[in-house]
Amino acid sequence: MRTDALRTGESKLPSSRSKSDKEWILRTIELARRGFAGASPNPYVGCVIVKDGKAVGEGAHLYFGGPHAEVHALKEAGHKAKGATVYTNLEPCSHWGKTPPCALALIRAGVKKVVSAMRDPNPLVAGKGFAALKKAGIKVITGVVESEARHLNRSFIKFIRERKPYVFLKSALSLDGKSAAGNGDSKWISSEESRNFARRLRAEVDGILVGGQTVRQDNPSLTAHGFGRNPVRIVLSKSGKLPKKSKVFDGKAQTWVLKGSIKEVMSVLGRQGISRLLVEGGDQTASEFLKAGEVDEVLYFVAPILLGGAQKMNDALRLEGVETWKQGQDIAVWARVKK
Amino acid sequence: MRTDALRTGESKLPSSRSKSDKEWILRTIELARRGFAGASPNPYVGCVIVKDGKAVGEGAHLYFGGPHAEVHALKEAGHKAKGATVYTNLEPCSHWGKTPPCALALIRAGVKKVVSAMRDPNPLVAGKGFAALKKAGIKVITGVVESEARHLNRSFIKFIRERKPYVFLKSALSLDGKSAAGNGDSKWISSEESRNFARRLRAEVDGILVGGQTVRQDNPSLTAHGFGRNPVRIVLSKSGKLPKKSKVFDGKAQTWVLKGSIKEVMSVLGRQGISRLLVEGGDQTASEFLKAGEVDEVLYFVAPILLGGAQKMNDALRLEGVETWKQGQDIAVWARVKK
Repeated sequence: MRTDALRTGESKLPSSRSKSDKEWILRTIELARRGFAGASPNPYVGCVIVKDGKAVGEGAHLYFGGPHAEVHALKEAGHKAKGATVYTNLEPCSHWGKTPPCALALIRAGVKKVVSAMRDPNPLVAGKGFAALKKAGIKVITGVVESEARHLNRSFIKFIRERKPYVFLKSALSLDGKSAAGNGDSKWISSEESRNFARRLRAEVDGILVGGQTVRQDNPSLTAHGFGRNPVRIVLSKSGKLPKKSKVFDGKAQTWVLKGSIKEVMSVLGRQGISRLLVEGGDQTASEFLKAGEVDEVLYFVAPILLGGAQKMNDALRLEGVETWKQGQDIAVWARVKK
Repeated sequence: MRTDALRTGESKLPSSRSKSDKEWILRTIELARRGFAGASPNPYVGCVIVKDGKAVGEGAHLYFGGPHAEVHALKEAGHKAKGATVYTNLEPCSHWGKTPPCALALIRAGVKKVVSAMRDPNPLVAGKGFAALKKAGIKVITGVVESEARHLNRSFIKFIRERKPYVFLKSALSLDGKSAAGNGDSKWISSEESRNFARRLRAEVDGILVGGQTVRQDNPSLTAHGFGRNPVRIVLSKSGKLPKKSKVFDGKAQTWVLKGSIKEVMSVLGRQGISRLLVEGGDQTASEFLKAGEVDEVLYFVAPILLGGAQKMNDALRLEGVETWKQGQDIAVWARVKK
C-alpha cells in the first residue's frame, strides 16, 4: 500500500547506539507523517535530537502555523540538546514566519551537528538555514535519504515553486472502464472500503474539487466524514447555478464556487493557499484537468464488476474469485463471472 | 498468479511415507496440468500409483485421444501395481472411447484401492467407473480435494454437460478504461509481457474468436506465436467478407468464418468440439458475449496509461511509480503522471 499518505502507524526503530544517519533521517520522515492531517500548505517535517546515540527529543510539525518540528524536539530534549546532533528531513528555517526561525533556536540550544535530508525549496530559506548554522560553528550534513524526503514533500515543493496546488485525481471505474450505468447511476461502483480510503485522503488535502454537474446530479457532501479535517469544497461551474439545498452548502466546511479555465482555477487556488487538491469528478472535470496537464497523481478504484451496456447498476455483471498480479507494466486481473 | 492455467512448474512433494490421501490427490492435480497444452476437449487428469507410501508410477493425460493418465502410471508401475493404491483427480473411465476403459486396466493390474477427487461428469461414465471397480472388490474413496479438482476441469464439466465452450474473455484497457485511441489505434495498450501471457493462453484453448471488424482493422494472426499449439481461429462476421490476404488465412491454423447469434455460434462450436474458447475482441464482440451471458471468465490487462481524449496512442499520458493493492473488493491503483 501507498506509504506516503494515510499511514499513521509507525515502525519502531530499535534505540541502539549503532544507528546510522540514514536511520535517524528515516525516523524524521516517519515523524513528519504526523503532519498529514494538518500541516499543509506548510511542509511535513520531523526532527530527532540525538545524544550519545540516543534520541533525547522528537517532534513533528503537526498543523499549519503551529510550532515547527525542531521546537517540539528541543523542548523535549531540554538541556540535553547542548552538544547533540539534530536530524531533520528538511533544512531548518532561517526566516521569521509564523514562528521564529528554527536555525536560531538550534544555535541558542548549543547543538553540535545538524544532519538534514534536503534544502528547503522555499526561496525565503533555500540554503540560508544551513548557512546560518555553519556560521555559528555547527557542522552541517545534507542530502541524506534525500529522494524519500523529496517524495514526502512533493506537494510542498510544487506549491512553493509554482504557487499552484499539487493535484490528485481520484476515480472509480468498473473493470471494463465504465464510471456509471446507462441511467447515470454511479452509486456505488467502488466498495465501502474504497470510499472510506478516499474520505481519509480528503482529510489530507486542502481542497476537494468537483464539477457543477456532479453537485446537481449526485449531491455529494464532499466532507471527510469524520476521518479528519474537512477540506475546502470547490465546485467548478460555468453557470454558477447550483441548487441552494445542495449538501456542499450545509456549512460543514467552506465551499467556493469557481468558473474559468483549469489554468485560471489552478492559479486562484494557489493564491488562496490550496497546496494539495483532490479532484473527484465527474468525468468531464477529470478529463479537463488531464488535458490541461495539471494532474500529478491518480488514484483509481477498479471494481470487480462489468458494466458493459447495463442500464442500471443492478444489471452489472459481478465477478468473483478475483486474482490480480503485475504482468510486465500492466495490472492483470483474472476473475469468474458470477452466475 | 492464477494457478490453474499457464503453470507448468511443479512443486516437489517430499516422498515421505506419511503423505495423506489429500497430498497424493494434489499431486495428481499437478500432473493433470501437463495436459493444459493438449488434452481438451478431454479432461485434465493425473494419476499416481502408491505402494508402501511411495509413488511407483505417475502419469498424466497429455493430449486429446492419447493414452489416459492411468495407462501411463500403470506402465511405469509395472508389477508393483499389484496391491497398490491408485490416486486420480477424476473417476477412472469405464467406457470404450478412443482408448480402452481405465477401470478395466486397474482391475487387471490387481490394484487394492482407488482414491479419487470427483465423479466423471460425462454421462457415459458418471459413477460407472467407480461401480466397476467396487464390483471387482477394489476399495473406492471419492470426494478428496474435490473443489480444486472441479475447478481444474471446469471447462470440461461445462462442455460435457452443456455441449458448448467454456468462454474466456480477454481484454486490454488503459487505466481510464479505454481500449483504443481516438484514431482507433490499440497497438499496443498492454505490455509485451501481457501479450505473451495471452499467447500462452491461446495454446491452452481449442478456439480463439474475434469479430470481422478486428480482422479488417487490426489483421491479427491469432496464433500462439510459438508458445504452443495453435487453436482454431474463429471469425464472427455478418457479411462473411474478409480480405483474402488477412493473416487468419495464412494457413498456420484452421480458420472458421461464422455468422449468427452468439447462442447459435456457441452451439455450433460445441458440436465442433471447441470446449475452451478465448474471445479476444473487439469491443462489440466482447459486449455481445457478455450480454448473452456466455462469458465464464475474464482476463483484463490494465495498462498504466490514461488514454482520455488522446487521438493517437503516443498522446496517452503515461504513469509511473504504480502501486496497486486490494481495497475491499476493489483493486486500488495509485500512480504518478509522467511529466
